[in-house]
Amino acid sequence: MDLTEYCISSNTVAADGVFSVKRDLVRLPNGNTSHRDYVTHPGAVLIVPILSNGNVVLERQFRYPLHQVFIELPAGKIDANEEVLTTGQRELLEETGYTAKDWVKLGIQHPCIGYSNEVIHTYLATGLIAGAHQRDEDEILETFEVSLADCLTMIQHGEITDSKTIVALFLTEKYLQSHG
Amino acid sequence: MDLTEYCISSNTVAADGVFSVKRDLVRLPNGNTSHRDYVTHPGAVLIVPILSNGNVVLERQFRYPLHQVFIELPAGKIDANEEVLTTGQRELLEETGYTAKDWVKLGIQHPCIGYSNEVIHTYLATGLIAGAHQRDEDEILETFEVSLADCLTMIQHGEITDSKTIVALFLTEKYLQSHG
Repeated sequence: MDLTEYCISSNTVAADGVFSVKRDLVRLPNGNTSHRDYVTHPGAVLIVPILSNGNVVLERQFRYPLHQVFIELPAGKIDANEEVLTTGQRELLEETGYTAKDWVKLGIQHPCIGYSNEVIHTYLATGLIAGAHQRDEDEILETFEVSLADCLTMIQHGEITDSKTIVALFLTEKYLQSHG
Repeated sequence: MDLTEYCISSNTVAADGVFSVKRDLVRLPNGNTSHRDYVTHPGAVLIVPILSNGNVVLERQFRYPLHQVFIELPAGKIDANEEVLTTGQRELLEETGYTAKDWVKLGIQHPCIGYSNEVIHTYLATGLIAGAHQRDEDEILETFEVSLADCLTMIQHGEITDSKTIVALFLTEKYLQSHG
């Protein structure tokens, strides 16, 4: 069966903020029409930085929509015309101060397929060299390190609930199992 | 360090669609002010239905924001004043036709902490009894079944990229490893 929904018309509902929201009129596979509201997002890169001692570099950051501090991996939006790998290198340096010699793409993930077009490119970064972070004044977060095994336990115990971070740690576990 | 951001004022930017978007003026930990835009969402329930032959019931659904068919687990929004488990039972029946005798909560996940307050409650459902689905005319999807091992391979091969589905399958793998 062709499950495709086709755009009839598209309107931007709100666009003055960090992201914009679109409302499209669409034709469904059964011939009916419906509305689809969704966030448009430039895409993001998520990095799993692993130190030579095997520990993962994590962050604690307050996330306003949920009024809660989350444990998460470094990540950030792709700038206009920026290569995805460049975004990863830039965000890792800005947020944590680390530069990495070796980058492996673990895959992509789609965090919110119901109402956002965001795609998150996920990288493993090793061969880390510590330096000074380049967070701007209003980018407030803390970094810390935990073994991968402990990360996986923290997921099972509900201490890590950020979906993008869980997916990236899962992909890392599987990658290291098959690549040693 | 207190990483908390405090609300100064809150405005609804767009609210006529499936979700609403808020723009809040907030005070940052360093005393500066900034804006936070985010989607408000009622929360959702995701179900990992496992048949007596060990296969997982999956869905294929076209997701308009990404113009792509995704492989995903059954899930749906929590209705007003609805118990979370009731949402899971209702959505499983509506989308797949199955009712389940045994429900285990695997945890919660937050799919989009940067710009949505959505929380997804994740359940394992076993003791399945097949019946007729109750999808409405415009809810167009296909169901199929795959072993859990094959699901995990499909994640590693990039055939499953929906974050909520990957997280739920990861939690299922870990749960079954420890509960047998």
